[in-house]
Amino acid sequence: MKQKLVVIGGVASGTKTAAKAIRENPDLDVTVLTEEDYISYAGCGLPYYIGNVIKEKKHLTIMNPEKFKDKDITVLLRTRAEKIIPGQKKVIAKDLVTGEEKEFPYDKLVLATGAKPIVPPIPGIELKNVYTLRSVTDAFKIRDAVEKEGIKKAVVVGGGFIGLEVAENLSLQGVKVTLVELLDQILPNFDKEIALLAEKHLKEKGIDIFTCEKAVSIEGEDGRVKALLTDKRKIDADIVLLSIGVKPNTQLAADAGIELGFKGAIKVNENMETNIHDIYAVGDCAENINLVTGKPAWFPMGSTANKMGRVAALNLYPKGEKESLKGVLGTTVVKLFDINVAKTGLSERDAKNAGYNIITVIVPAHDRAHYYPGAKNIITKLIVDKATHRLLGAQIIGEGVVDKPIDIAATVITLGGTVEDMAKLDLAYAPPFSSAMSSTIVAANVARNKLLGKLEGISPLELKDKLSDPGLQIIDVREEAEYQVGAIPGSLNIPLKEIKKRVGEIDKQRETVVVCKLGLRAYLAYITLKHLGVKNLRILDGGVTAWPFELE
Amino acid sequence: MKQKLVVIGGVASGTKTAAKAIRENPDLDVTVLTEEDYISYAGCGLPYYIGNVIKEKKHLTIMNPEKFKDKDITVLLRTRAEKIIPGQKKVIAKDLVTGEEKEFPYDKLVLATGAKPIVPPIPGIELKNVYTLRSVTDAFKIRDAVEKEGIKKAVVVGGGFIGLEVAENLSLQGVKVTLVELLDQILPNFDKEIALLAEKHLKEKGIDIFTCEKAVSIEGEDGRVKALLTDKRKIDADIVLLSIGVKPNTQLAADAGIELGFKGAIKVNENMETNIHDIYAVGDCAENINLVTGKPAWFPMGSTANKMGRVAALNLYPKGEKESLKGVLGTTVVKLFDINVAKTGLSERDAKNAGYNIITVIVPAHDRAHYYPGAKNIITKLIVDKATHRLLGAQIIGEGVVDKPIDIAATVITLGGTVEDMAKLDLAYAPPFSSAMSSTIVAANVARNKLLGKLEGISPLELKDKLSDPGLQIIDVREEAEYQVGAIPGSLNIPLKEIKKRVGEIDKQRETVVVCKLGLRAYLAYITLKHLGVKNLRILDGGVTAWPFELE
Ligand SMILES: Cc1cc2nc3c(=O)[nH]c(=O)nc-3n(C[C@H](O)[C@H](O)[C@H](O)COP(=O)(O)OP(=O)(O)OC[C@H]3O[C@@H](n4cnc5c(N)ncnc54)[C@H](O)[C@@H]3O)c2cc1C
Ligand SMILES: Cc1cc2nc3c(=O)[nH]c(=O)nc-3n(C[C@H](O)[C@H](O)[C@H](O)COP(=O)(O)OP(=O)(O)OC[C@H]3O[C@@H](n4cnc5c(N)ncnc54)[C@H](O)[C@@H]3O)c2cc1C
Ligand SMILES: CC(C)(COP(=O)(O)OP(=O)(O)OC[C@H]1O[C@@H](n2cnc3c(N)ncnc32)[C@H](O)[C@@H]1OP(=O)(O)O)[C@@H](O)C(=O)NCCC(=O)NCCS
Ligand SMILES: CC(C)(COP(=O)(O)OP(=O)(O)OC[C@H]1O[C@@H](n2cnc3c(N)ncnc32)[C@H](O)[C@@H]1OP(=O)(O)O)[C@@H](O)C(=O)NCCC(=O)NCCS
Ligand SMILES: [Ca+2]
Ligand SMILES: [Ca+2]
Repeated sequence: MKQKLVVIGGVASGTKTAAKAIRENPDLDVTVLTEEDYISYAGCGLPYYIGNVIKEKKHLTIMNPEKFKDKDITVLLRTRAEKIIPGQKKVIAKDLVTGEEKEFPYDKLVLATGAKPIVPPIPGIELKNVYTLRSVTDAFKIRDAVEKEGIKKAVVVGGGFIGLEVAENLSLQGVKVTLVELLDQILPNFDKEIALLAEKHLKEKGIDIFTCEKAVSIEGEDGRVKALLTDKRKIDADIVLLSIGVKPNTQLAADAGIELGFKGAIKVNENMETNIHDIYAVGDCAENINLVTGKPAWFPMGSTANKMGRVAALNLYPKGEKESLKGVLGTTVVKLFDINVAKTGLSERDAKNAGYNIITVIVPAHDRAHYYPGAKNIITKLIVDKATHRLLGAQIIGEGVVDKPIDIAATVITLGGTVEDMAKLDLAYAPPFSSAMSSTIVAANVARNKLLGKLEGISPLELKDKLSDPGLQIIDVREEAEYQVGAIPGSLNIPLKEIKKRVGEIDKQRETVVVCKLGLRAYLAYITLKHLGVKNLRILDGGVTAWPFELE
Repeated sequence: MKQKLVVIGGVASGTKTAAKAIRENPDLDVTVLTEEDYISYAGCGLPYYIGNVIKEKKHLTIMNPEKFKDKDITVLLRTRAEKIIPGQKKVIAKDLVTGEEKEFPYDKLVLATGAKPIVPPIPGIELKNVYTLRSVTDAFKIRDAVEKEGIKKAVVVGGGFIGLEVAENLSLQGVKVTLVELLDQILPNFDKEIALLAEKHLKEKGIDIFTCEKAVSIEGEDGRVKALLTDKRKIDADIVLLSIGVKPNTQLAADAGIELGFKGAIKVNENMETNIHDIYAVGDCAENINLVTGKPAWFPMGSTANKMGRVAALNLYPKGEKESLKGVLGTTVVKLFDINVAKTGLSERDAKNAGYNIITVIVPAHDRAHYYPGAKNIITKLIVDKATHRLLGAQIIGEGVVDKPIDIAATVITLGGTVEDMAKLDLAYAPPFSSAMSSTIVAANVARNKLLGKLEGISPLELKDKLSDPGLQIIDVREEAEYQVGAIPGSLNIPLKEIKKRVGEIDKQRETVVVCKLGLRAYLAYITLKHLGVKNLRILDGGVTAWPFELE
């Protein structure tokens, strides 16, 4: 008799497991159960379908049960697994069309039940045109509403990357979007100065953003949404997207005695095995390990889901050494109108919480030769361990290419590289692609300078907090014309060229911050001023380019 | 008295050394000598100036002696170093304007004399409008000629990346370009199948290319070039660019008793020190170490020149541990009309010559989610060490983004990563930037399958050689409609879906190659056929997509 594999869940991780399992074991009898109408859909493409960037439904739903049949995989749509009985090695499922109950005996069981949106417990969520976005069906409904119901105003609750992607895409459809976020920043996994830069751009693009604001209820009229009320205001809305986060979909597993871990995700080892023999868990329903800290984490990403699926498939009937996924970095990238934002590894906040003694740098640079048409700016933030000089994390934002340098950083972190390693990388250079000293290498060198004590910096957030401090002097070393356009409040302009002869204007004992456009001229001024005996000196990391607050 | 640093050469490595040296040692007396009229120019941008992609001269020549003066660096233009006397620690130079001889005593001397074009010893090179391209002045002359002399036809001799960039840029200026290359391929550092794909694209863009052809003389009329003669034909030309390679500019060093190494480049250790105390060499005039093989190499690249300059500067007066550059990978990227081509580490040829036992893969993939607008194809070739599974090299070509994956590969190689490491990288994924399983990860997995014996492949070149072999059967598993459009000569079409039921048509004992569009369906067919007992089986690596020869 054929060995039986049952997979519960059919989006990214479940289908990947099934497809790989049968490649490894052509005689396997593979069944994928999903409660949905579609299988194998492009979850990550949903916001772009809403925005009509991806025009057609079929681009999101390329696979179907017939195509899986060609792979010798049985897919059962509209079939919900309701109970797992590990002792009898079977799954009880319900046919959602007929209501019939079915039994699926298994030799190996893979849980790929994913995650589901957290719905805030506020009045009005049952109103028409209040949505969450998780499944392809959700996306179809949202776009239908937008295109057919004359929707003009939307409120997005939650400033994570899904909320932001939807905000952009609704806006591309001509909808006026307001975003409400409970925290004091959008992009909660990012450090605040980067999130603030993103916020600034979104606002420039016409998205209203209210942070530190709580959605308290949704008002309706004739059963349809009319407005969202926060603890501070009422915002008119024809549509509301609730996007305050996701949680692992693991009740089924828990009920079967499968151990849960971090944030309620299913505990798995690096081989994707749960605590119950012959039961594996993959994708968004399962826990991850943070590769930097070695601690449990939960990064519900499509990229990771696919990798986990492949690992599980290889371990169903391992031939030799088991396959493993030691951990992930939570690498993320998101496009927001004309800018791109990416992150890998630990944020500054994460790193401090994890007990690292760190330095950080913020380095603006061009994404390719500055003289080559199309060159754009990006701002790189690095988080580096003082003790080992290892890169712990990176965040990059800007109009230019950010996914390349973030992937380089992810690779460095994964392989345990230091900023010294990073600074010496032989990265591809030609003017259409990079600078001779690429942004990655420059950022690594700035970090090295800090680690060696050749340069001390102050972050924008820290300087902002200190602005009212009367002991502080801020010297702006840009040209006067640049300074006139906008400068940090309270700063004194002494252009770099004049710094030597005007050093007398600087109180050598006072706490001093040197500011320029990028940090480069401030660094040169720093060297000169140190040499001239100025003591308590720092540069503003990233200069006015990375300053997310008002200039005056 | 101030310590004196003299730097000979003022483009990339010399100016980087000077700039960093004075940051490290603000009291240093720094002089840069260059025989040219310009300093610090963008050598790598020159082809784009010729094509009017970079419109203005000033974009190439941002720095000048006055700006260096602001950095406390003395730059002497039109000043050629003619002799180094290490015993007396001085340089004898000539003012090229006045003819005057000058002496420059030094405490530290840095040679940054660069490289120069190899000029083939053929008659006619003295004719007007026969050029090499190295300096910014060359570029100014060439563009002037193109724009003011009604040039219609150009011959480029040499198919390296500079020759190709100029070919593209002349063509953008409306000039009909013919390229002549002595070897049997363009892009000599790349493996032939990749070079052939590039050649195909250039030909589609209207560049005539003749490989295996030797330029033997240049014919003129009234002192101006009229035609280039090869050993096979005469090609009319209003302009000829000689671009057959560069050699290190090291006579000055050799005359001073400084040891030369690989290809006549100055021998330096990882600290950029030559055999003579207090004399350093950096940039194109100096040798490199190949980071993969640990052997001497010579990679005259602007990216490397900058890094070497920084290393030397830190080692002039080292504070603590010396700075080092252990080696480079010869990473290169070039844009050719609508495609991009990149390479890092060892080519297949290099790896074999270096004695590695390798596997290679050729994997076409999208550069981002296939359904996201703008998604384009790239083809990734990996070269992997069988013994250690370490990545030794990568080459990527296509319309899509190649610099990102090549930089990831360069990082993996540098940090000693294996294809297992590469396959698990947590790379940034969102539809506008990547696929959930990025091209890098897919290519690494294909390599792992090969290493584990789950898949055997044949390269396009090897299959091409075998086409006439009567013992070989080629099975094309694409759909009939695809097969009709163009197929490998002599192949039999059995679509993947029918492979099980039509397996009888395949002679199980004969040598068999399975072909599809990308390699993916061939891999699935491979699994099925193996399972059904077909013995001597391989897939065509990269399918018809990476097949650089004719289809029929
Ligand atoms: C709008 C949006 C944008 C995103 N963008 C990105 C991005 O840019 N990059 C990225 O990496 N990730 C992104 N993600 C996350 C990505 O989509 C998920 O990580 C991925 O879909 C996880 O796949 P999965 O198969 O583990 O789980 P899911 O996609 O959640 O699929 C689980 C499936 O199992 C079914 N199921 C659950 N329980 C049962 C049951 N008892 N019986 C039967 N079926 C069941 C569910 O209905 C669902 O079909 C995005 C997600 C969304 C919603
Ligand atoms: C057309 C073109 C395109 C290129 N594209 C790329 C690319 O895309 N990516 C990349 O990485 N690299 C590229 N390069 C290579 C890159 O330009 C070189 O690697 C870089 O310029 C090397 O810098 P260098 O300072 O070491 O030497 P050079 O640029 O060669 O400069 C040496 C300088 O020293 C001067 N000099 C020599 N001898 C003396 C002397 N005795 N006295 C006084 N002065 C002297 C020379 O006149 C010259 O000005 C390209 C080069 C060219 C020509
Ligand atoms: C399509 C899907 C069912 C996966 O099926 P799959 O068969 O594993 O994936 P592919 O069709 O891409 O095939 C990949 C296999 O082909 C191999 N392959 C790819 N290109 C190849 C080539 N040129 N030569 C040889 N092998 C190749 C890969 O190595 C892999 O095999 P392996 O895992 O055995 O090593 C699943 O990925 C899916 O449903 N995806 C859509 C949903 C999703 O991922 N959402 C994420 C968020 S949007
Ligand atoms: C410009 C040139 C003279 C180099 O001068 P340079 O002063 O070293 O280079 P930059 O002006 O970019 O300054 C870089 C320094 O600023 C630092 N820096 C850059 N951005 C910074 C920031 N935001 N904050 C703090 N420091 C910063 C870098 O770390 C570096 O300092 P370090 O080397 O001491 O670590 C030289 O690169 C040159 O001539 N280039 C043109 C020619 C060329 O490279 N051609 C190559 C082929 S086209
Ligand atoms: Ca600046
Ligand atoms: Ca195929």
